[in-house]
Amino acid sequence: MVIDLQKVIFNLKQNDNIVILAHKNPDGDTIGSSFALMYALQSMGKKARVLCNDDYPKDLIFAVGDYSEESFEAEYVVSADISDIQLLGNDVLNKYEDKIDMAIDHHRTHKSFAKEEYVQPTAAATAEIIYEIIKLLGVKITEKIANCIYLGISTDTGCFKYSNVTKHTFYVAGELVEAGANTAKINKRIFDTKSRKQVEVESIIVNSIKYYFDDMCAIVQIPADFLETHGATEDDMCNVTNIPRQIEGVEISVIIKEKEDGICKVSVRCDETINAALICQTFGGGGHYAAAGCVIGGDLDTAEKILIDVIEKRLKEINIV
Amino acid sequence: MVIDLQKVIFNLKQNDNIVILAHKNPDGDTIGSSFALMYALQSMGKKARVLCNDDYPKDLIFAVGDYSEESFEAEYVVSADISDIQLLGNDVLNKYEDKIDMAIDHHRTHKSFAKEEYVQPTAAATAEIIYEIIKLLGVKITEKIANCIYLGISTDTGCFKYSNVTKHTFYVAGELVEAGANTAKINKRIFDTKSRKQVEVESIIVNSIKYYFDDMCAIVQIPADFLETHGATEDDMCNVTNIPRQIEGVEISVIIKEKEDGICKVSVRCDETINAALICQTFGGGGHYAAAGCVIGGDLDTAEKILIDVIEKRLKEINIV
Repeated sequence: MVIDLQKVIFNLKQNDNIVILAHKNPDGDTIGSSFALMYALQSMGKKARVLCNDDYPKDLIFAVGDYSEESFEAEYVVSADISDIQLLGNDVLNKYEDKIDMAIDHHRTHKSFAKEEYVQPTAAATAEIIYEIIKLLGVKITEKIANCIYLGISTDTGCFKYSNVTKHTFYVAGELVEAGANTAKINKRIFDTKSRKQVEVESIIVNSIKYYFDDMCAIVQIPADFLETHGATEDDMCNVTNIPRQIEGVEISVIIKEKEDGICKVSVRCDETINAALICQTFGGGGHYAAAGCVIGGDLDTAEKILIDVIEKRLKEINIV
Repeated sequence: MVIDLQKVIFNLKQNDNIVILAHKNPDGDTIGSSFALMYALQSMGKKARVLCNDDYPKDLIFAVGDYSEESFEAEYVVSADISDIQLLGNDVLNKYEDKIDMAIDHHRTHKSFAKEEYVQPTAAATAEIIYEIIKLLGVKITEKIANCIYLGISTDTGCFKYSNVTKHTFYVAGELVEAGANTAKINKRIFDTKSRKQVEVESIIVNSIKYYFDDMCAIVQIPADFLETHGATEDDMCNVTNIPRQIEGVEISVIIKEKEDGICKVSVRCDETINAALICQTFGGGGHYAAAGCVIGGDLDTAEKILIDVIEKRLKEINIV
């Protein structure tokens, strides 16, 4: 059932021993939202704890500060920033699948799963909603709570870079600064810090970029053994899709990842020139105008050649090459 | 003479045929502030134009939109974001040195040069002050004006990443979004776009980093012929100081640039471990705790060896190595 903000407040005031669920592969928004709400409920004298299927990344959890895990029997279960029940992760799913009392989320793609649901897709982050909730609960936004909410908002907006940032997002950010959020420290660690391996791996990828069609199209191949060869982890690859995209003049950027089983996973990002989804549909894939994906059988060079042919055909159709 | 905001408004209302001076090597704040003020004055029916000693970088000026250069005899001269008269640049300096009626600036280091001065160091950008001025002039913040002010604020705050961002900065940013500022387009071009050469050069620099003291210190050497060797320009080097700094665990980052005349220019950036100014003072340089510079005679390897010795001595003194 869809509920309004007043009902969210009523539910939280009414209940105690509250478990807050964060989604698997936790990001800054699910962590920041969950811990901000936990701190707020605890300051009201309630028992509350956050539960997540997976470990919290060190580079995110530092922002929530020191906390202690309270042990109690869950009487009320809230999910924060979870758009689909599958995102609970297997362990949490098994225990809580049909026990979620209230979902708080901002995803446009939210699929209903809780008894009551508050979804606000104009919010840049679930943490932006949590800010409103905490204010309405009458709880002071402490420095710790401000840090949590800031973590959620800054990570979901690329530090205010994306187009999801609204006047209200900036308004909340201003309130968080006033409440003492340590924005510079959080920003430095999240947006201006890379591991040595990540920097090295990105340099290798930069040097492997192949350019086509007057450098309008940039292609990166990632062999199946890339991580092993370079002693890198998936974490070190978190920024790879941005590498060809950020290059001036590149309007079509393609990452081809070779899988162990003789297929290649392809991700295509486009500016305004062509429709990425159209390119990927040729291979049974799909997506949006700006971002799409598909799978192509064969090795890296084969996949690249086939893709280039399709892109060239499309560019010819619209008289660009 | 120091004046208040009311006097700034009085001066702008009172005068016509206004020339607005931007500083040499123009950045986003001087450009955004100057053009925002120009548009506002023009919408009041006044003649106004912006004057700058140097060309505007394409990657910044795009944000101000189309404008036409009005030709008229200057009756009133305002400087925007200029902290020191020398920053006018030679050509403009010769013509306007003693003719500046009013300076509007946010630099803490502002050195008085105009007949009247309005300096507000708590503003993250001069553009943040210009926003207040335009509101008080009673001029509507159009989309164009909003883009100019956003350009100034976003560039002077690293897209809201730096610690100079206040509650008021976020408040103004929110008003600009409401006024229609094209934030996503400006952010993409300024913060997420690099030339192909810049990306290549940065990759070369990443691979040349030398690490010392358990990787706590990272050093980059830049030979005198580096630009020539790689066909790069100074623009391609704009991000170089950030490369060693962003690496996880690096607390002391050093860039040694070889000059043609057998000396090396050194820039040192430190986190909290040691005082960069202390290191550089050893060589007759200076600066702040977090950022300092000096000049060392000799070639790159000599300079590096001498520096490492001084840093090691300092780290031993504080029992870190």
